[in-house]
Amino acid sequence: MRDVAVIGVGMTKWGELWEKSLRTIFVETALLAVEDAGIDKIDSMYVGCMSSGLFAGQEHIGSLFADYLGRKPVPATRVESACCSGGLALRQGFIEVASGMSDVVLVGGIEKMTDVGGNEATYALGTAADQEYEGFHGLTFPALYAMMAVDHMHRHGTTREQLAMVAVKNHENGSRNPLAQFPFKVTVDMVLKSVLVADPLRILDCSPITDGAAAVILCPADMARKLKKPVVRIAGSGQATDTIALSSRKDLSWMESTHLAAKAALAQAKRKIGDMDLFEVHDCFTIAEIMIIEALGLVKKGQGGKAVEDGLTAAGGKFPVNASGGLKAKGHPVGATGVAQAVEVVEQLRGHAGERQVKGAKRGLTQNMGGTGGSAVVHVFEAE
Amino acid sequence: MRDVAVIGVGMTKWGELWEKSLRTIFVETALLAVEDAGIDKIDSMYVGCMSSGLFAGQEHIGSLFADYLGRKPVPATRVESACCSGGLALRQGFIEVASGMSDVVLVGGIEKMTDVGGNEATYALGTAADQEYEGFHGLTFPALYAMMAVDHMHRHGTTREQLAMVAVKNHENGSRNPLAQFPFKVTVDMVLKSVLVADPLRILDCSPITDGAAAVILCPADMARKLKKPVVRIAGSGQATDTIALSSRKDLSWMESTHLAAKAALAQAKRKIGDMDLFEVHDCFTIAEIMIIEALGLVKKGQGGKAVEDGLTAAGGKFPVNASGGLKAKGHPVGATGVAQAVEVVEQLRGHAGERQVKGAKRGLTQNMGGTGGSAVVHVFEAE
Repeated sequence: MRDVAVIGVGMTKWGELWEKSLRTIFVETALLAVEDAGIDKIDSMYVGCMSSGLFAGQEHIGSLFADYLGRKPVPATRVESACCSGGLALRQGFIEVASGMSDVVLVGGIEKMTDVGGNEATYALGTAADQEYEGFHGLTFPALYAMMAVDHMHRHGTTREQLAMVAVKNHENGSRNPLAQFPFKVTVDMVLKSVLVADPLRILDCSPITDGAAAVILCPADMARKLKKPVVRIAGSGQATDTIALSSRKDLSWMESTHLAAKAALAQAKRKIGDMDLFEVHDCFTIAEIMIIEALGLVKKGQGGKAVEDGLTAAGGKFPVNASGGLKAKGHPVGATGVAQAVEVVEQLRGHAGERQVKGAKRGLTQNMGGTGGSAVVHVFEAE
Repeated sequence: MRDVAVIGVGMTKWGELWEKSLRTIFVETALLAVEDAGIDKIDSMYVGCMSSGLFAGQEHIGSLFADYLGRKPVPATRVESACCSGGLALRQGFIEVASGMSDVVLVGGIEKMTDVGGNEATYALGTAADQEYEGFHGLTFPALYAMMAVDHMHRHGTTREQLAMVAVKNHENGSRNPLAQFPFKVTVDMVLKSVLVADPLRILDCSPITDGAAAVILCPADMARKLKKPVVRIAGSGQATDTIALSSRKDLSWMESTHLAAKAALAQAKRKIGDMDLFEVHDCFTIAEIMIIEALGLVKKGQGGKAVEDGLTAAGGKFPVNASGGLKAKGHPVGATGVAQAVEVVEQLRGHAGERQVKGAKRGLTQNMGGTGGSAVVHVFEAE
């Protein structure tokens, strides 16, 4: 397998983009990545997207985007794994370049979620859960994560305030991200007084419904060096599944698929979790980030809430988590999230993250997952 | 890149499977492939499926199927490219094994289409077209292929009867396939008198709405040899895109993406089209098969209709096309089709195709496409 590098990244402002179509959002974002890479050649494309069928009445978006990007007849393949779609598209691009099948691969992630009403969006997102054993009975994602939160609070003594502190930290970070959907700060008090969604989760515990895209361009590391681009390698990629239904898990508040994916990615990179300088993780709900930092091994099981309270994961902390603002403040166009995490880590490792810059960052990790963790993917990035 | 072989295949009876759920159909089929492979190890899974979201209210099916197959935590990724989803899932599995990332990969294709009504199924299938420039204006797939048929008849003198002869041939072949949805014979007269769908296409020119799945297991060719299994290698894989909308094409009745995908697959296999002993192609409508055999280079442009009339593509002809019965008689659960084509070719190259056996077949080709050819994938198989 060949070493793979990211030589181009692109991201556009996220939000409620009613004036832009699905294809426009993709093309604008992909063109930024092409411009950043500085080469015009693309051999192949992957697109991560959860449900353009339910959100936009459009499947077959590999063909659509290759066409509208002016890149037909290049191969273009869409990858879906609920909110993990973007991360898995990145992994497919990584495998294709590593295999030698293609040299330059464009990986995009996208979701356009606000052209349907709230109930339809909730239904569409709900198709990431087990339709027969969860969706059919009326369970939505806030409800599923609320059960995980209650379990974590019961087992480990995690407090309602600690959940709120995840939102406070990520909005603090997001206030420094000009592309974020909600670049404003919140306080613990604001979170605790925000509208109740599914007890104990409130609206400011939840990531928003977002339109947006992100794109990266991959090539062999040797090619990147020859092009004299700043070289950020994908040193490791790990993927795992768990039961799709929460009811089949032994431990409701342990993210096994994330744990295994991280183990595989770090093993491939020949690194330990402590070697990483920053982390972009899948905080679809505040409780998710707490469970993820435990599953990654940043803290011991049950200590995630306390770690946030102690500032371990803050911008200036030992393990900066979601310097971008995370899903919480940056927004969560589900299929785009996994690719946007890669964009942030590459910008950080290049030292181009502006006000959000994690000083001296040389290695970073992304963690993206689907549903309640039925699928997860972790990538390790290293600057040369 | 490593040589890749198919060591297991599985397919179950296709039709209107109202008594079986999406997950049941997948698991039953995948288990047949596992049994056929004779090894219990699976490192990774791919699933081709066009729109489980619109047809079954269920996305995230990589996680669902890995779980219900009892294979979690193996990585499992869904691939979508409309009716080309199965073929692209096969290609992703091929790349993963070729890259050295995994040894044993299960590739499944599935669609469960009959749990929704006819209008909903037509809408769901229509999302493979350009939603803004085709779907929005009421164009459905029979209408799009009808325009291609009219264009082919006008340019090349293809006759209404020649279209019917594709259906007659494929139903003749399908009558020997116990897993086919419609294993009965039809006559030219029956086709010409069947219900008009979109002039000139009649109901017996169209592939049906089907529930079904197919699965194959891939591994390095060296491993297959050590296991003393009959070795069928995937010698080449080619993929291409075209404009998603028919209105953007220079030539309505030329399948450019199929032409380019075949060229790439044959180049990788170091073979010519004439070296192939049998062909499974994407006859979603009778006119499609005529255009495909031209694009593959079996006959010159415009000669597809005459070739069918002359028996060139019949079971005993020079180039047997769709010995399985094709999409027309076997059925067309869209995401499953590309994988089922591989199952048929492998069975043929092993000499296990029963009454449908193409005598002495050693090399075969599959061609699978999405929409009106916005995406296409071709694989070349060789028995050792």
